[in-house]
Amino acid sequence: MTIRDVADYCGVSVSTVSRVLNNHPDVSAKVRNKVLSAVRELHYVPNISAQDLGRNSSDNIGVVVRGAENPFFVNLIHSIEEAIEAAGYTMIISQIPSDADELEAGASLSRSKRLKGLVFLGGCFNYTASEVAAIDIPFVCCTFTNEFGDLDSDSYSSVCVDDRAEAIRAVRYLIEQGHRRIAILLNDREDESVGQLRFLGYCDALKEAGIDYDDGLVEETGVYSMEAAYRAAKRLFARRDDFTAVFVTADSLAMPVLKAANDLGRKVPDECSVIGFDGLTMSLYSIPTLTTLVQPSEKLGEEAVQTLLNVIEGKAKHQQKVLKTTLRKGESVTVVSI
Amino acid sequence: MTIRDVADYCGVSVSTVSRVLNNHPDVSAKVRNKVLSAVRELHYVPNISAQDLGRNSSDNIGVVVRGAENPFFVNLIHSIEEAIEAAGYTMIISQIPSDADELEAGASLSRSKRLKGLVFLGGCFNYTASEVAAIDIPFVCCTFTNEFGDLDSDSYSSVCVDDRAEAIRAVRYLIEQGHRRIAILLNDREDESVGQLRFLGYCDALKEAGIDYDDGLVEETGVYSMEAAYRAAKRLFARRDDFTAVFVTADSLAMPVLKAANDLGRKVPDECSVIGFDGLTMSLYSIPTLTTLVQPSEKLGEEAVQTLLNVIEGKAKHQQKVLKTTLRKGESVTVVSI
Repeated sequence: MTIRDVADYCGVSVSTVSRVLNNHPDVSAKVRNKVLSAVRELHYVPNISAQDLGRNSSDNIGVVVRGAENPFFVNLIHSIEEAIEAAGYTMIISQIPSDADELEAGASLSRSKRLKGLVFLGGCFNYTASEVAAIDIPFVCCTFTNEFGDLDSDSYSSVCVDDRAEAIRAVRYLIEQGHRRIAILLNDREDESVGQLRFLGYCDALKEAGIDYDDGLVEETGVYSMEAAYRAAKRLFARRDDFTAVFVTADSLAMPVLKAANDLGRKVPDECSVIGFDGLTMSLYSIPTLTTLVQPSEKLGEEAVQTLLNVIEGKAKHQQKVLKTTLRKGESVTVVSI
Repeated sequence: MTIRDVADYCGVSVSTVSRVLNNHPDVSAKVRNKVLSAVRELHYVPNISAQDLGRNSSDNIGVVVRGAENPFFVNLIHSIEEAIEAAGYTMIISQIPSDADELEAGASLSRSKRLKGLVFLGGCFNYTASEVAAIDIPFVCCTFTNEFGDLDSDSYSSVCVDDRAEAIRAVRYLIEQGHRRIAILLNDREDESVGQLRFLGYCDALKEAGIDYDDGLVEETGVYSMEAAYRAAKRLFARRDDFTAVFVTADSLAMPVLKAANDLGRKVPDECSVIGFDGLTMSLYSIPTLTTLVQPSEKLGEEAVQTLLNVIEGKAKHQQKVLKTTLRKGESVTVVSI
């Protein structure tokens, strides 16, 4: 019987159980009671010695959030904070725009706040060994890895989903519903980041189904914003009326796509199916409800922190972990009727 | 010529200008160039001595976020972080559920992290002097004040909008469009917090227009979540079909109201107008676009931090500041057609 068993039994995170056991005030009464009941029912005995080995509270872990306006990061930041606190460290956060340099921000934070380690939340997949040389503390890439870079796998940790494989899955799902002319709306297809990987997955899925790639069905937002996505969707719908589905590489960009379709009188899903990526809560309340791949945001944050702390505390080497998404079927995808 | 003039000229915050002038990496190239051009054009000379008086970087300011899942807080946290960093302090954040006790969380954070001051982001309006006695450092209430409590005005700072007056404004706007039977959907009308004040404002606006209060037009979500708002809206629409407008006390709750109306075939705005509160970016992309009162979120965060730092640094006494919202007309309110 471990703390993980209690957490699984209650459907909460390990850090939540830890906070209840350590009498942290920031847990709701409902969750607190649920955890305490489970502890009794399961006869769980906390490992007191491990608890007593609490870290010095001045041990800081930096979290650099690139693209803080991304609603997908809200739950993730929360789970990262919980995990850092539960382990007895202090989280120092730095939120930077999505076009800023996270390595520079991380190096600067590391110098000014004397960090033990760094979590990069959102970032590029193309770090080179010389670029990360300025970061002289352990770091973990959360939601991304080093696909386009040259880092040694024992020099960094990462926790993310396989963006290319998951994009294949999204587009394959559309193809299974009979779609053949499928558009993609994304930030930037050559960003050496999440956009590029999801774009490559889109191409892979078309190829495996024997569908020719059509450059006119690719639309980029340029910057990452709802406004840019709305304008991009309008361009795409104005240019082409022969596609029956569109893969939008983030839920927060898919909301404006639904809006643009509505404003142009293009019915979703009857005239155009839409599939998203991320699984934001708000996509449960869009009109229509969005079909999307749900990222395990709580788990991503928890694993990122745990992986980093294992390195900091000398318990394990750097690791690259890959988690899975879950397809959530909404109202925005239908079987093709043409 | 002050740093504020440069900020206003560029349409950015004071802390952004400060970050550019101090060569922080976490500013986008676009904003950096805009600020540097403005500095040249306006012949602004930074006050070097003030800059050199930078604080010890170990000076921590705590930020307790109550209801971290509230999307309205995302921009606010960002502006609070910018302002704290720009002043040379370190932000230590603690995110707690909306039903947890922020004072207890603040006291605990203050003890463990040796804070200079505390920002409470989201909280109750009913603190008593004995309750806050455990907080022995200066604090500022951000987005709320002490309407239902008994604090001396020189014992705390607050920066918020006047929730009651702004709610009057929202409902008055509906009345001006000819609506007489106006429902309200909110979290809790007796929460001694933002829900209660906006409810009282709703009642005030009806009264001044000579409209009788109708208890059957009030629907509470109980907990603060999109899911609860969706269920509450369904209950309201099922119970009554004679109201022509609904005031929803938060944009994030208004999205599910639009969804519920859609699912029940109640057309917005033709059969029911909807007005929100907060001014989230996503309410620009709902179907239909939401009419709402936009809170000055960047300014709220900046002022909260500045007010707190003035107290910490002995430059000013505690203050209670009130900012204004801006009505943003969307597609969700129409002139009543009955």
